[in-house]
Amino acid sequence: MNHDSNDTQAVKLKGEEVAQHNNRESCWVIVDGRAYDVTEFLPEHPGGPKIILKYAGKDATEEYAPIHPPDTLEKYLDKSKHLGEVDMNTVEKEEKEEDPDEAERQERIARMPILEQCYNLMDFEAVAKRVMKKTAWAYYSSGADDEITLRENHSAFHKIWFRPRILVNVEKIDLSTTMLGTKVSIPFYVTATALGKLGNPEGEVVLTRGARKHNVIQMIPTLASCSFDEICDEREGDQVQWLQLYVNKDRAITKRIIEHAEKRGCKGLFITVDAPQLGRREKDMRSKFSDVGSNVQNTGGDNVDRSQGAARAISSFIDPALCWEDIPWFLSVTKMPILLKGVQRVEDVIRAISAGVQGVVLSNHGGRQLDFARSGIEVLAEVMPELRRLGLENKIEIYIDGGIRRATDIIKALCLGATGVGIGRPFLYAMSAYGLPGVDRAMQLLKDEMEMNMRLIGASSIDQLDPSMIDTRGLSMHTTSVPSDTLGLDVYDPLVGPSGSFRPETRSKL
Amino acid sequence: MNHDSNDTQAVKLKGEEVAQHNNRESCWVIVDGRAYDVTEFLPEHPGGPKIILKYAGKDATEEYAPIHPPDTLEKYLDKSKHLGEVDMNTVEKEEKEEDPDEAERQERIARMPILEQCYNLMDFEAVAKRVMKKTAWAYYSSGADDEITLRENHSAFHKIWFRPRILVNVEKIDLSTTMLGTKVSIPFYVTATALGKLGNPEGEVVLTRGARKHNVIQMIPTLASCSFDEICDEREGDQVQWLQLYVNKDRAITKRIIEHAEKRGCKGLFITVDAPQLGRREKDMRSKFSDVGSNVQNTGGDNVDRSQGAARAISSFIDPALCWEDIPWFLSVTKMPILLKGVQRVEDVIRAISAGVQGVVLSNHGGRQLDFARSGIEVLAEVMPELRRLGLENKIEIYIDGGIRRATDIIKALCLGATGVGIGRPFLYAMSAYGLPGVDRAMQLLKDEMEMNMRLIGASSIDQLDPSMIDTRGLSMHTTSVPSDTLGLDVYDPLVGPSGSFRPETRSKL
Amino acid sequence: MNHDSNDTQAVKLKGEEVAQHNNRESCWVIVDGRAYDVTEFLPEHPGGPKIILKYAGKDATEEYAPIHPPDTLEKYLDKSKHLGEVDMNTVEKEEKEEDPDEAERQERIARMPILEQCYNLMDFEAVAKRVMKKTAWAYYSSGADDEITLRENHSAFHKIWFRPRILVNVEKIDLSTTMLGTKVSIPFYVTATALGKLGNPEGEVVLTRGARKHNVIQMIPTLASCSFDEICDEREGDQVQWLQLYVNKDRAITKRIIEHAEKRGCKGLFITVDAPQLGRREKDMRSKFSDVGSNVQNTGGDNVDRSQGAARAISSFIDPALCWEDIPWFLSVTKMPILLKGVQRVEDVIRAISAGVQGVVLSNHGGRQLDFARSGIEVLAEVMPELRRLGLENKIEIYIDGGIRRATDIIKALCLGATGVGIGRPFLYAMSAYGLPGVDRAMQLLKDEMEMNMRLIGASSIDQLDPSMIDTRGLSMHTTSVPSDTLGLDVYDPLVGPSGSFRPETRSKL
Amino acid sequence: MNHDSNDTQAVKLKGEEVAQHNNRESCWVIVDGRAYDVTEFLPEHPGGPKIILKYAGKDATEEYAPIHPPDTLEKYLDKSKHLGEVDMNTVEKEEKEEDPDEAERQERIARMPILEQCYNLMDFEAVAKRVMKKTAWAYYSSGADDEITLRENHSAFHKIWFRPRILVNVEKIDLSTTMLGTKVSIPFYVTATALGKLGNPEGEVVLTRGARKHNVIQMIPTLASCSFDEICDEREGDQVQWLQLYVNKDRAITKRIIEHAEKRGCKGLFITVDAPQLGRREKDMRSKFSDVGSNVQNTGGDNVDRSQGAARAISSFIDPALCWEDIPWFLSVTKMPILLKGVQRVEDVIRAISAGVQGVVLSNHGGRQLDFARSGIEVLAEVMPELRRLGLENKIEIYIDGGIRRATDIIKALCLGATGVGIGRPFLYAMSAYGLPGVDRAMQLLKDEMEMNMRLIGASSIDQLDPSMIDTRGLSMHTTSVPSDTLGLDVYDPLVGPSGSFRPETRSKL
Repeated sequence: MNHDSNDTQAVKLKGEEVAQHNNRESCWVIVDGRAYDVTEFLPEHPGGPKIILKYAGKDATEEYAPIHPPDTLEKYLDKSKHLGEVDMNTVEKEEKEEDPDEAERQERIARMPILEQCYNLMDFEAVAKRVMKKTAWAYYSSGADDEITLRENHSAFHKIWFRPRILVNVEKIDLSTTMLGTKVSIPFYVTATALGKLGNPEGEVVLTRGARKHNVIQMIPTLASCSFDEICDEREGDQVQWLQLYVNKDRAITKRIIEHAEKRGCKGLFITVDAPQLGRREKDMRSKFSDVGSNVQNTGGDNVDRSQGAARAISSFIDPALCWEDIPWFLSVTKMPILLKGVQRVEDVIRAISAGVQGVVLSNHGGRQLDFARSGIEVLAEVMPELRRLGLENKIEIYIDGGIRRATDIIKALCLGATGVGIGRPFLYAMSAYGLPGVDRAMQLLKDEMEMNMRLIGASSIDQLDPSMIDTRGLSMHTTSVPSDTLGLDVYDPLVGPSGSFRPETRSKL
Repeated sequence: MNHDSNDTQAVKLKGEEVAQHNNRESCWVIVDGRAYDVTEFLPEHPGGPKIILKYAGKDATEEYAPIHPPDTLEKYLDKSKHLGEVDMNTVEKEEKEEDPDEAERQERIARMPILEQCYNLMDFEAVAKRVMKKTAWAYYSSGADDEITLRENHSAFHKIWFRPRILVNVEKIDLSTTMLGTKVSIPFYVTATALGKLGNPEGEVVLTRGARKHNVIQMIPTLASCSFDEICDEREGDQVQWLQLYVNKDRAITKRIIEHAEKRGCKGLFITVDAPQLGRREKDMRSKFSDVGSNVQNTGGDNVDRSQGAARAISSFIDPALCWEDIPWFLSVTKMPILLKGVQRVEDVIRAISAGVQGVVLSNHGGRQLDFARSGIEVLAEVMPELRRLGLENKIEIYIDGGIRRATDIIKALCLGATGVGIGRPFLYAMSAYGLPGVDRAMQLLKDEMEMNMRLIGASSIDQLDPSMIDTRGLSMHTTSVPSDTLGLDVYDPLVGPSGSFRPETRSKL
Repeated sequence: MNHDSNDTQAVKLKGEEVAQHNNRESCWVIVDGRAYDVTEFLPEHPGGPKIILKYAGKDATEEYAPIHPPDTLEKYLDKSKHLGEVDMNTVEKEEKEEDPDEAERQERIARMPILEQCYNLMDFEAVAKRVMKKTAWAYYSSGADDEITLRENHSAFHKIWFRPRILVNVEKIDLSTTMLGTKVSIPFYVTATALGKLGNPEGEVVLTRGARKHNVIQMIPTLASCSFDEICDEREGDQVQWLQLYVNKDRAITKRIIEHAEKRGCKGLFITVDAPQLGRREKDMRSKFSDVGSNVQNTGGDNVDRSQGAARAISSFIDPALCWEDIPWFLSVTKMPILLKGVQRVEDVIRAISAGVQGVVLSNHGGRQLDFARSGIEVLAEVMPELRRLGLENKIEIYIDGGIRRATDIIKALCLGATGVGIGRPFLYAMSAYGLPGVDRAMQLLKDEMEMNMRLIGASSIDQLDPSMIDTRGLSMHTTSVPSDTLGLDVYDPLVGPSGSFRPETRSKL
Repeated sequence: MNHDSNDTQAVKLKGEEVAQHNNRESCWVIVDGRAYDVTEFLPEHPGGPKIILKYAGKDATEEYAPIHPPDTLEKYLDKSKHLGEVDMNTVEKEEKEEDPDEAERQERIARMPILEQCYNLMDFEAVAKRVMKKTAWAYYSSGADDEITLRENHSAFHKIWFRPRILVNVEKIDLSTTMLGTKVSIPFYVTATALGKLGNPEGEVVLTRGARKHNVIQMIPTLASCSFDEICDEREGDQVQWLQLYVNKDRAITKRIIEHAEKRGCKGLFITVDAPQLGRREKDMRSKFSDVGSNVQNTGGDNVDRSQGAARAISSFIDPALCWEDIPWFLSVTKMPILLKGVQRVEDVIRAISAGVQGVVLSNHGGRQLDFARSGIEVLAEVMPELRRLGLENKIEIYIDGGIRRATDIIKALCLGATGVGIGRPFLYAMSAYGLPGVDRAMQLLKDEMEMNMRLIGASSIDQLDPSMIDTRGLSMHTTSVPSDTLGLDVYDPLVGPSGSFRPETRSKL
């Protein structure tokens, strides 16, 4: 049998032949009915070699599909490694182990709340947490290090309070605004998040449909599960999409991506600048461990699996050398507005204006990169007064993302001066739990909350929101309490109300 | 049988006839022995159509009575829809399902603490929480969004501390003061709260009696369960009442209400300005869901029940267009002092003075409208120094409400410069748990606390309270802690005292 | 039988005769083998009539003794009501109910930790909490209202941090200092606390012995369980005592007490100025309720037991009219140094200096009077800089009490400028749990901590402590967090370390 | 048998003879097969006499070895007390009690996570906590008093947040820096910690090997379990070690130690200045109690075991009189750079510069000495701006230690201006749980985190870190919340999401 010529192959590979290539020295895997020789690719795999070796000689489709766009093998694996079709009837079906976690998950899915029981964005997350696969949940929900920034992102909004206006005519509320020239129905967009198929078999196109229905913009992620073109194809009418870009070391590839996006009608290019290296997310790592981990007590220091391997692999794709000097080149290769996504201090916003970009997203990558990076809303509160002082507030559009869960969060950002906000995980969770109807309801809930809260703060349109309507005095303090006085708390007898008397055993004494 | 002529009807309707109109196309309900055709009214019902449809063709009295004033159908349902009396013997008695929650509640009621076991206002709430119907409790206790303002309202008082005077003669304590010209025994009034019959079958008149006994003012709510006249009728002697007003789009109706109130002797008109749209209270919504929710797994995006329907329905009653320009008209139609209830920033207090009203209530509607609205006491601390700076502090009476639970809370407000404070939920809870005796004891406890704390702060009368007697340095900061360091806390072994030795299993080792 | 002449009585009263006077109309009680007619005294009893009526016609000794000095009846009940001796053999022994709480307490006493297991003052409290009678514990440990000041008193010390000096010769540490002219071994004194016999049958004399052993001053409380003379008699050698004074409305009584104290050698007179009315302590009230509470469901509004009764009764003893104008009189009737105990703001410290007193105690009465009164240490931090600014810092001795549990707390107060600190409850708890050895060890532990911490902060004697050695920037803020985001916290999955793997069920998967 | 002449002894001692000396009057113990008469040494033992008496007449090797360097008896016990070899066959083997704690610990060890499951430094601590002997864990993990400083040390880092730079070329990250002239691979060193053999039978030499592998400096502790020479001998190549020094009262001994260290090649002398007396650590004391504690209920006040005994014993070794005047002498006896370890305020840093030392370590001794001492990182934030103001920032090298657990912690210290940081406990825990491979992985994890976080903050080398990259506004506040409003919290019904519906019992109602 001649494996070299995979173009003209007539005879299908047999499962038992593939099965022999089940180790680091010769590693074949089957994906979608075709076999591939990934032996040489093992050390370069961004997810590490272990996860591939688990499927060495076997069918990896089920694990592979959700986390790789369909054209991945085509693009990244040399044609000579494409071994051709496999006769799937000859592939041994793997007896799946009884997985009690999975059984419990199916139980929970059977009893999940109906969509109408979700009243706010957190509710979708609460449901998703219980119905998603543990590894998928871990990937979506995890953050950097101690996940302190992850949580701070939403928590920071709690430090901003309202100073509502009264007796304003709020009969008609107009939530619409303009982002990079596009009129949208409400000032949020669906921001880029990776690996949508982990949550829903259809992936990011579900978000495309939701965004269309509610007339908001979708930002297409570089690391989508769907291919870029699939997501574009899903667009209808004058629907608008933006592109989120991880810059490749090979600028030719980057250029090709940008030009393709522009050709396909993308209306904005968001260059990610907060991820020269993809973050460590320990919750995610731990969840994978139980899948991939070795099953022997291996504590030998030298056999330690270095995360650097994966980091270096990713470095071959994302360019850690990307710097300000590259910006003119980007401006030269596209007419799309260019925005920097992941700016984190006012000095860099000012520099971005000088560099000639049209906007910035104040963001810490959803708390997934640098722990103790400040929240977008806090950076916004630092940026806007300084821009106003310098007369630069209209030179650029400022967006934030991270931690937005309530319409009040959006209103706070707009009062401070943001053009709009990006929302990511909440729509992923809505999609993971309920599919398109979930995304639809999530967006509608935001609109309902937004309309009501605009009324209550005393603004009938977006342009009426201003800094006098919020109190941000608590925002800048990152406090932690003095550690607790354990012994002191232990001796204190908390007060109890009369409810004690409800207890039958107590009652007898009264 | 002629249903058109309900005036001269002699023959009563039969239950089985009513029972046929049990759907959206033709929906009749029975209330207090009379049938009504509410088919056309369904989409306009402020509480949504579902709850009515639950009783389509049936007797709805038990559900209807506590939450609608007796004259509601008379006022709001066209006469042509009044179908006349029903022969109640022919109406099929509904077998009530065994409700384990209700059985447990009856258990708790049987064992409830005696009134003397309530030592403070929180105690009534603790009892009410356990003896009230779940939906009634949810309605009273719920707040907007994440209920952060709801809780902040009381919590804010904890940031204000005392600087008591010593060696002041406090033998005789005079708690009396004057509100809008009325001498009262203590500086609080019973503020307006809706749907009193949810807590007590007699409704708001119980509060009227309690207020009379303690010589405090009652503010009559627009959305009372009792009719306005019933509450007025309950007044005795020189007892004083005020009116809380939701302004109707139809100013003729509003004018009629105001004129009627003035005629019936109301001494103050409090126009609610913080509720152009009634707030979403998710706890309340969830509690109703289990009553009304559909019993199939309906996750279709297009069938989603929009809360907008209810919102719009309510908009037909409360005018979201109410604005400053309307104030002169109010001043022209009544001689009652006019106050704005729900003011939330100093700019609007100053504008209120210019507009010629006699007072404001700094309030966020008990945390039921805009989450992250600041507490009344915090706004007061912002307002008073600015008014004093402008020499306006005597131009207007300033009240606050929200979160008052202790006499010390009242004293803090008075030290800052409030004329008095409104108290709502605590009296509702006292009434719900113990009826009039509960309201009586709640008020007496406040008086006892007040007298003692006036002594302890070193003031023998209300006018001796001044800003030097409080320390408000902590008030303005809205802080949240840096999110917890989960792993760090997990590895810390808290200190334990010697109490461990009490454990028998430990003892053997010593 | 002639009860009128109790002087010459020869025949003893019979139990059954006493037993007939068992009601409000005629109420006799037996104490220490003698009967008393307390019918007329009932409404004046500071603790309310109920508790007496419980023992009407019976022997009340066991309940009475711990909470009344031996000479109380002699002093306060008119001789005509002393009915003479009772033949105790004829008094029916009361069958004690089985009290499961008491049985459990005895169990705990049998297993209590040995004294050597107490390593700090909190440890005694932890033990006392478990071995004391519930009502006694409630009396000692309770505070005003929500007990926020009670807890703040110790918590405030946590906001003060050290700036230690290094490379100071601390070989020899001298902890001694001088208070009102008396040399003491360490800068604390045993402050006045009421009802010592609740914790130990011998009462306050145990503290006298402990204070003698460690050469510290004891302040004798007005409301001691032992009589004043018993406590004085216990003094030895040049041991020094002070007197804490509640001022009686009848200044003749007050004068007699002062003169007697001076004659008996007291070296300081501390006039309590923070208790014109004794505070409500709900924990204490609740604990008594289960003893005294009525056993029927009485919710009638008019039968409510007013706490005012007790308050008025106490007013007949403590003078709420006491004021600055009284101070010259006090100065005129004694040569003892006079100090005001319970001063709470700098203005009053300055006034105290003008009034000519020798000192003040910055105190909030152990958190038992006005909730939200600030801690003594916080007031001290307000007072001292202002006194220094005015050049008054040496005109007066400043003490604080409240919440001191560690030698570091004492050092913080001294750094700020206090002459010394009063410690109350911790010694009560040590005495209640372990008697004199407990008090002894508690004082010794404080000395050990003090010596070590003086070394560590870099001071070899008390006078080397100064404000530069502490950081008080956090002290003045009374913050509370923004209320928690319940839904947000609920959806967050806290990080877990590898410890999960220890669980057997998890291990099987690895 | 002649015990006097232990030099020429031929006949071994018999176990039964040793066994007779089993009391305070005559106390012999066996260590490593040799007997010693420690009767006179008992009162001087730093750990107190009790622990020795437990082994009186017995073989103490197992308890003795981990906590004493091998040459201790040689050095500190007079030769006349060395009784010579024991015939170990004649020594009665002690039946070990069944220890359920120990059995459980062995269970946990059998199931411990594999090394690869440790993803950060806290993970090693979590494992060590479960696999170490309780007393060893207590010794390592305990801190002073309420352990508030212990926890604050790490917690303080949480108040510092990042202001990352974007678009910086971070392809190549250089973590190397120079400490006291030594080039190291990453800016941390292994700081001195006592009693390494409690965690690992080999003791501190394991850390020597780990430090060598990762090219970082090890600071040798005075109180090591290994002898100083053993640790030096373990050094290889150009590996660098420093010496931590407790100064002995006898300066001749101190001089000998310094000269020996210099001769053995130590490159830095760190004089501990924060421990004139070793701290009380109650957790440690309690853990020892269960070993050593008397087994009778001894509550006699006079028999109380004074901690002063141990304190005084230690004073004979560490000199509490050490002061600034001694510094010139140290400078005169060595050419090694001298640093002061344990400086805690800027005044003393400035004085250290004047005194001519080369550096300071801002440290509170890992929270083991003075509770409420501030964290090193906070002191650093106080020190550096003042040094810069005075132009002194380059006159001295500043290190900090305490609470460092993440690379972000290191970066924060470097941004503020530290030359490097010391890390102690984390490596002890890694060693205790996994030996050298644990130490290796711990260091590697720090390097991985460091490289990534340098990229994410936008710095490619250590010298690019500057104060503009952090936000320290929250650092200086030591806040505690107002004590909780127990009754208020009790009546609040927390919001719950739709997850309730997952519960089967609830589902039936929907």
